[in-house]
Amino acid sequence: MHGAMDDEVGPELQQLYDDFAANNMTPLWTQLGDLMPMVPTPEAIPFVWRWKALYDIAQRAGKLVPVGRGGERRAIALANPGLPGTAYATPTLWAAIQWLEGNETAPEHRHSQNAFRFVVEGEGVWTVVNGDPVAMRRGDFLLTAGYNFHGHHNDTDQPMAWIDGLDIPISKYLDVGFFEFGSERVTDEASPEISRSERLWAYPGLRPLSGLDNRVSSPIAAYRWEYTDKALSEQLKLEDEGHPATVSQGHAAIRYTNPTNGGDVLPTIRAEFHRFRAGARTEATHEVGSSVWQVFEGSGSVVLGDVEHKLETGDLFVVPSWVPWSLHADTDGLDLFRFSDAPIIERLHFNRTYLPGQK
Amino acid sequence: MHGAMDDEVGPELQQLYDDFAANNMTPLWTQLGDLMPMVPTPEAIPFVWRWKALYDIAQRAGKLVPVGRGGERRAIALANPGLPGTAYATPTLWAAIQWLEGNETAPEHRHSQNAFRFVVEGEGVWTVVNGDPVAMRRGDFLLTAGYNFHGHHNDTDQPMAWIDGLDIPISKYLDVGFFEFGSERVTDEASPEISRSERLWAYPGLRPLSGLDNRVSSPIAAYRWEYTDKALSEQLKLEDEGHPATVSQGHAAIRYTNPTNGGDVLPTIRAEFHRFRAGARTEATHEVGSSVWQVFEGSGSVVLGDVEHKLETGDLFVVPSWVPWSLHADTDGLDLFRFSDAPIIERLHFNRTYLPGQK
Amino acid sequence: MHGAMDDEVGPELQQLYDDFAANNMTPLWTQLGDLMPMVPTPEAIPFVWRWKALYDIAQRAGKLVPVGRGGERRAIALANPGLPGTAYATPTLWAAIQWLEGNETAPEHRHSQNAFRFVVEGEGVWTVVNGDPVAMRRGDFLLTAGYNFHGHHNDTDQPMAWIDGLDIPISKYLDVGFFEFGSERVTDEASPEISRSERLWAYPGLRPLSGLDNRVSSPIAAYRWEYTDKALSEQLKLEDEGHPATVSQGHAAIRYTNPTNGGDVLPTIRAEFHRFRAGARTEATHEVGSSVWQVFEGSGSVVLGDVEHKLETGDLFVVPSWVPWSLHADTDGLDLFRFSDAPIIERLHFNRTYLPGQK
Amino acid sequence: MHGAMDDEVGPELQQLYDDFAANNMTPLWTQLGDLMPMVPTPEAIPFVWRWKALYDIAQRAGKLVPVGRGGERRAIALANPGLPGTAYATPTLWAAIQWLEGNETAPEHRHSQNAFRFVVEGEGVWTVVNGDPVAMRRGDFLLTAGYNFHGHHNDTDQPMAWIDGLDIPISKYLDVGFFEFGSERVTDEASPEISRSERLWAYPGLRPLSGLDNRVSSPIAAYRWEYTDKALSEQLKLEDEGHPATVSQGHAAIRYTNPTNGGDVLPTIRAEFHRFRAGARTEATHEVGSSVWQVFEGSGSVVLGDVEHKLETGDLFVVPSWVPWSLHADTDGLDLFRFSDAPIIERLHFNRTYLPGQK
Repeated sequence: MHGAMDDEVGPELQQLYDDFAANNMTPLWTQLGDLMPMVPTPEAIPFVWRWKALYDIAQRAGKLVPVGRGGERRAIALANPGLPGTAYATPTLWAAIQWLEGNETAPEHRHSQNAFRFVVEGEGVWTVVNGDPVAMRRGDFLLTAGYNFHGHHNDTDQPMAWIDGLDIPISKYLDVGFFEFGSERVTDEASPEISRSERLWAYPGLRPLSGLDNRVSSPIAAYRWEYTDKALSEQLKLEDEGHPATVSQGHAAIRYTNPTNGGDVLPTIRAEFHRFRAGARTEATHEVGSSVWQVFEGSGSVVLGDVEHKLETGDLFVVPSWVPWSLHADTDGLDLFRFSDAPIIERLHFNRTYLPGQK
Repeated sequence: MHGAMDDEVGPELQQLYDDFAANNMTPLWTQLGDLMPMVPTPEAIPFVWRWKALYDIAQRAGKLVPVGRGGERRAIALANPGLPGTAYATPTLWAAIQWLEGNETAPEHRHSQNAFRFVVEGEGVWTVVNGDPVAMRRGDFLLTAGYNFHGHHNDTDQPMAWIDGLDIPISKYLDVGFFEFGSERVTDEASPEISRSERLWAYPGLRPLSGLDNRVSSPIAAYRWEYTDKALSEQLKLEDEGHPATVSQGHAAIRYTNPTNGGDVLPTIRAEFHRFRAGARTEATHEVGSSVWQVFEGSGSVVLGDVEHKLETGDLFVVPSWVPWSLHADTDGLDLFRFSDAPIIERLHFNRTYLPGQK
Repeated sequence: MHGAMDDEVGPELQQLYDDFAANNMTPLWTQLGDLMPMVPTPEAIPFVWRWKALYDIAQRAGKLVPVGRGGERRAIALANPGLPGTAYATPTLWAAIQWLEGNETAPEHRHSQNAFRFVVEGEGVWTVVNGDPVAMRRGDFLLTAGYNFHGHHNDTDQPMAWIDGLDIPISKYLDVGFFEFGSERVTDEASPEISRSERLWAYPGLRPLSGLDNRVSSPIAAYRWEYTDKALSEQLKLEDEGHPATVSQGHAAIRYTNPTNGGDVLPTIRAEFHRFRAGARTEATHEVGSSVWQVFEGSGSVVLGDVEHKLETGDLFVVPSWVPWSLHADTDGLDLFRFSDAPIIERLHFNRTYLPGQK
Repeated sequence: MHGAMDDEVGPELQQLYDDFAANNMTPLWTQLGDLMPMVPTPEAIPFVWRWKALYDIAQRAGKLVPVGRGGERRAIALANPGLPGTAYATPTLWAAIQWLEGNETAPEHRHSQNAFRFVVEGEGVWTVVNGDPVAMRRGDFLLTAGYNFHGHHNDTDQPMAWIDGLDIPISKYLDVGFFEFGSERVTDEASPEISRSERLWAYPGLRPLSGLDNRVSSPIAAYRWEYTDKALSEQLKLEDEGHPATVSQGHAAIRYTNPTNGGDVLPTIRAEFHRFRAGARTEATHEVGSSVWQVFEGSGSVVLGDVEHKLETGDLFVVPSWVPWSLHADTDGLDLFRFSDAPIIERLHFNRTYLPGQK
């Protein structure tokens, strides 16, 4: 689409344009196509980060960069090459690898931004959320909803790395962020197998009578791998037995949900886990909104736009809005964790979109 | 309160009253106090049924009354003495003991009425809900939401008894019931440890991506005792450790919920499980709406209105609307299952009530 | 459907049945067909009350029966012949004609029961709701949601009659009613054209910033005839102009709604107004739940079940659950007010019903 | 807040930072204070645009710039000086003056972006929304929810200007926009007093039975000045009479709402109208999220941050997130239209924020 004004500009018109600028005004017609494109035209690009590279560089940071008050976290963000000058994976989502050396502590603080952690390998760190120590282990999905105090401490001699996901970009964009420092050390250094949050909340369909109030974020601090793994295996077994259970043939998936309302775990972030049987393949999918995936286990490939990328354990990739994606599992199957800004898109009803020409 | 018309009635007025009747009209003023009392004045009365008596009589029925198409179920309802001529525990709730001899089958049917089962002792029966066999074992809470085909079959040589709860009374009152016969035998005679429904849905906070649609009733067919028991023990342990978890000192409780929305398992019935430590005691409570309790384990007493009743395993009691109740656990503690019509009361906003004279 | 027990009963079985009764137990199998019928089988019957008869008898009551504290209201209820011994139009709904002589006052009180008034003719009474005087005029629909103090006073020398609708029957059934006396006289005897409630709330799509809290009932005390009439005429004009606006050809209708949520005006009662063009006719309709209609203007007929009834201004008729009904407007068209228990049915999800044999 | 790395950087560390960049990674600790500030630190600045300047420049554009397919609209956006290179009033909101010469037509198109128009002076243009001609007159608030075809035509010989508000910025940010061209001329050139949408929907509390489906945006195309004006005057009169009605002393306000749910008119934009009595003054208020105000009538001043600005009819000003604002009305009172991104903030639960140090 081109504007109405692309012909030569006479002096009177030039003066008008100058006066626009002088008066802090901008005409629509010269930039309509950029502002209101026919279909989403994200600046963020599809991109793959390799786990090996991330891990190695984080390990080096572990040796060279101290962690403590001020910098707060040894977290290194995936910076989308299409969003230069930012530390953002997508316009809305922050994804980082965080590294904690043996016996280190990341001090407590709290902020409006919502956070989760996902562990692709390792263990030994407890994240302490509002004084509740939460063990972090391989395959676990852990929550720190907005404005809960939290710190991390490594209870072992070995380093540990994991993935952080936050809504930092949209919080910054919307100018909604508040931040407060807390204790230098975690407020409870115990290292229980499971958190008090889980002891109170992590039962199928059971809600404590002391917890009947509405909660915009899930009260479950940790979604343990044993349940995720079991749920996905059972979906595939049910499929084998001839019962509806999977999303599509060979594709099992769960969404992590808030047990108080059945919806997303955080107001701004959706999190899911997908398992593909060996050889399974999805159709190319367009979605409004952006997502980040991490391979948890297995191997396969993803097609992002027109480009196919091989995938191995720990690799992360980004799917910007409306970029078609499809996945393919190799002979050992493919397990992936996924998070996205779908709650934002859906709550603002921008998922009500159409291909031009369609009703 | 008395009406305006309690003086002698002259002939002209008598004619008026006769004409009311002849025209199918009824004056308000003569019956206002009955129709609109100062506080709820239920006809249902507080009452206790003893498990031993229920069990014995059900056992005799097992020998004398066949089960099959037509009568459909060998279920014997608790009939509130305050509601003569009915088979209702309270105005809204049906509670019955159901008995199945060894190797018997109760044929399949479906109906608008919502049902659950609770097992205070025994095992060996599978209830088959929409073709999904669901094992019934001690402490389990099992759902058959409205208009799902269901039958029961006893896979052992021993009889089994359990409690049925339904919204038959309010369905009859509202004239909303539909009923349809199904298969004479259960459509799947397998006897798996857990149902397909549980394999798909019964994980803490995990929702299958194939099950994102809204559901007015819970998709979990069985809430297993191991989770209920664990949840309650953990609440008491957390209390011991100094953390908020219980409803009140020594009183742990969970509500069975629909994981798709965090609300009640059925649109008309709330179900909960309460555990009291030895010696724990609740304050006298008035509630709008009615409930039925069954002792699961332990001993203690309940005060209903002014009368104290000793309680033992399996005993059932009814609390009509606004009748004050309090519970007391003996030295071995007290476990109780409870169901009520609270979802009806709350959805119609009749829980917004007040003592006269209060704001 | 017949039970399993209709053969001769031997002595052992007779003893069992006697023991059921002695233990306050009732077997399901002997009454299954009554409790759980194939389709709703209401005891309430379709019935028509003639306005002329109602009005005449209310007029006589105006002369013979005082109004005041104790009896509270000179209201005469439509008593469904299928529900003998009650003063109920349907199992859930109360409908009455209320009569106030010139210069009379019905004293203030409040109760949990939700009420509305509809005026088929006349004017001159102000109902005072929480101290806000609300003029009652022909065609107006007026609300008194639960637990608001209210009284009525006739500001003229002429009597006035109107229709009251309440949820007295279901409040009695559920044992949820609270009642409190208020002032002997109305607390504000002013007679403004419109109420303060309307001045604050009755604008299309505008909500006062001082009224952003959720309200389970509509804050609009009076829905004026001028708007109802206009809305219906415009629907028919839009239909004439070829635009979608009516429910079906020649059938315009509005629902009175709560502007704070777009839903029903009261938690238990739906209210609508229907206008049929001359000659318009609806198809026979089955609905779960009961309703009461009043002819406002025009003439026509209703078929209830198999019986056709002629209709004139003011006539009221009742449609019990699942009884098929259809309307037909004579040459001068037909305007009808309707109220029903649909919010109850829908909130309890009993509208999810099916004809047997259907999915 | 400063990061952990602000001391001199040795060669090994420098290499690490270089490798971060080479691998599309960015450390959190060097930019934490920018990304996660203590309180919102918007780049957008508080700013006032003068109506006279806007109008004059738009008038010149009317002479120099044609309107038609390609450029689509003669709209000139308020460009926040704190957001250089954009045409955005705030990060989320677009505000523009649109100008249509006598007898001109802006062609039809549709897009995912939600739009409204507000008219501070003039009349004569009809905006045609999905074929429904909607007159635009002084004081009217008009809606074009996402993906409705719309064009404008001036039915007079005189030019007309108005304000457009859209969610273009957040649509661009989230990459959710779809756009489609429609008819070159408006599809209905009639010039009715009110639109069909109003004839169907714009009645207090009445909902057409043909419109019971949920709608994420309001179906009312035009909120007319006569109702807004009346609602605000009545609030002030009720205040004079001693009844609660206003937001605070001398401050009347309404929110434009969606009659199908009582919520905001659009999923992303809240719109309100505020009236201040002569001399009224608000306290300084901090809000999370941004808003744009336009003076409709009267005069007064606004304090934005620390700076006071005099206000006259038509002046527009922007309040970025967390910037304190207060208003003061001069002797002739002050009427203002306001729109904001509050639905976005509230739906993502970022309104749950706190001053640091508070609970």
